[in-house]
Amino acid sequence: MALTVVGVMGPGEDATEIDCQLADRLGELIAEQGWVILTGGRPAGVMQAASAGAKRRGGLTVGVLPGNAPEMASDFVDIPILTGMGEARNIVNVLTSRVIFVCGMSAGTASEVALALKAGRPTILVNAEPTSIDFWQSMASPFLRHATTAEEAVTLVARLLERSSQS
Amino acid sequence: MALTVVGVMGPGEDATEIDCQLADRLGELIAEQGWVILTGGRPAGVMQAASAGAKRRGGLTVGVLPGNAPEMASDFVDIPILTGMGEARNIVNVLTSRVIFVCGMSAGTASEVALALKAGRPTILVNAEPTSIDFWQSMASPFLRHATTAEEAVTLVARLLERSSQS
Amino acid sequence: MALTVVGVMGPGEDATEIDCQLADRLGELIAEQGWVILTGGRPAGVMQAASAGAKRRGGLTVGVLPGNAPEMASDFVDIPILTGMGEARNIVNVLTSRVIFVCGMSAGTASEVALALKAGRPTILVNAEPTSIDFWQSMASPFLRHATTAEEAVTLVARLLERSSQS
Amino acid sequence: MALTVVGVMGPGEDATEIDCQLADRLGELIAEQGWVILTGGRPAGVMQAASAGAKRRGGLTVGVLPGNAPEMASDFVDIPILTGMGEARNIVNVLTSRVIFVCGMSAGTASEVALALKAGRPTILVNAEPTSIDFWQSMASPFLRHATTAEEAVTLVARLLERSSQS
Repeated sequence: MALTVVGVMGPGEDATEIDCQLADRLGELIAEQGWVILTGGRPAGVMQAASAGAKRRGGLTVGVLPGNAPEMASDFVDIPILTGMGEARNIVNVLTSRVIFVCGMSAGTASEVALALKAGRPTILVNAEPTSIDFWQSMASPFLRHATTAEEAVTLVARLLERSSQS
Repeated sequence: MALTVVGVMGPGEDATEIDCQLADRLGELIAEQGWVILTGGRPAGVMQAASAGAKRRGGLTVGVLPGNAPEMASDFVDIPILTGMGEARNIVNVLTSRVIFVCGMSAGTASEVALALKAGRPTILVNAEPTSIDFWQSMASPFLRHATTAEEAVTLVARLLERSSQS
Repeated sequence: MALTVVGVMGPGEDATEIDCQLADRLGELIAEQGWVILTGGRPAGVMQAASAGAKRRGGLTVGVLPGNAPEMASDFVDIPILTGMGEARNIVNVLTSRVIFVCGMSAGTASEVALALKAGRPTILVNAEPTSIDFWQSMASPFLRHATTAEEAVTLVARLLERSSQS
Repeated sequence: MALTVVGVMGPGEDATEIDCQLADRLGELIAEQGWVILTGGRPAGVMQAASAGAKRRGGLTVGVLPGNAPEMASDFVDIPILTGMGEARNIVNVLTSRVIFVCGMSAGTASEVALALKAGRPTILVNAEPTSIDFWQSMASPFLRHATTAEEAVTLVARLLERSSQS
């Protein structure tokens, strides 16, 4: 039986302090649930914070990297997946994750939310801006969810995963 | 010297009548400029309409397809590029295009706009909804442009390309 | 109706003089047949020579590049397809080509021959070394062909394409 | 610090009984070394056997899949990486692996050996046919190695990894 892999997506170098605190807390909670955490793998922003949070609680961390050199990975990534495909790796992030948590917004993050909705992966915008919520809601996707806090988001996902494992 | 390739992106099966009329007109104008038109290559929505418009005016059409079988391409595509990579082909659409015209919005289209802004390709939202304009403007990208009509969009791009060829 | 796209694959920087002469001649003959030629697009070795040969005879040339910058393309490429995917672009070369001509051998070239046989694209080894012929024949693929000269290879492909257009 | 990920590559449905026994034994030995094993992830041939061997000894198994659905993964895969990219996933297999063990040969496997030599990943042909050895040696790659048994191959890799961790 495969482990449960969940993604945490968000800005890299442009992440705000609040994005990173949220990602760190999500990382902790995800590890406590026994889920494997997947990020974009670089040592920056939301990727770095989420992986650091997960490692603090003994979680297993996967990073799907745009480059082809292991040195590019965050030190908090246990399993660096090297794609050498640049931004095309975003589709791997999305497809590999059972659900996707989103902290903050940037062009790269928007591409992942869009691909996730298209691929039918439940996507939880955590503490998102109204502009962002309005836009993604206009897609009328059944896979979009919102949460205000990391705790609320993880509880929501735990329920989603439980339901899908029963069906 | 390479030909000038420009992309037209927008919804497939979910395109509105207005999206398709706009894409068809863009295709005509692009062909009249002597530019090569690039789309997602499938026989649906904006892709189909833009390629049809371009062929009506004698243009050359490239379609970058998610699948691996030539039969999946629109009949209006002269050069089907078969990627077999599903949605990962969206990055090829974006990188290959000198500029990108966007008609309508969907999850797939949003992934292309996001990747284009990240990759630094000028992206022109044509006749976009306010919700969409608000969201993409919140990225604060220097590569985002707006136009109301196909004519205005093509004039804008002609100026952009002329300026970049002089620099 | 789509144009007929055929690929010419072979070493880049490590190509021999003979590989390049063969590729140049293939390019000329392909253009004379009215086929579109596809290569890996970089200004080196077999890619460069095949595109140069095709342009000399007025052919249309497509180059599928590993990088994301148009400046990386050979000057003999009319339509640079920018993938930004590194070696993952080899699968695009293979799938997009109706048939594949192979001049010389290298690790990159071997990956393309292997992918072509797997994808079911007719692959013609032109003037190949015995070691290479022995190895690829051991795959027992119905898609593998051999030719000694560029002329023989193009005649063989013309027959293959005619037959497939009649079926 | 990242875990040590090593790949085991070989035929799927066309694997011989001997290929599979070898892959199974490699899986056991890899797990005993504490390395993470990476395969193409499908429930067939060398991929399946290597993952099964590793799980029998309590190893952690990663499978990089061509498709986008988790159900396509072998039951012996702990972490299915879903690429949705078809054969383009082969480059991910290769780049992600510190070294690559090869059992048996097929078109798909040949593409991975070729990409590995190109990318500079040490590649160990285990119990290979002379035709195959002759061909790959003709590439004159410093990354190619041979071994007769699983034990010999793992000992060789252990030495390679130790040396690279000291440098």
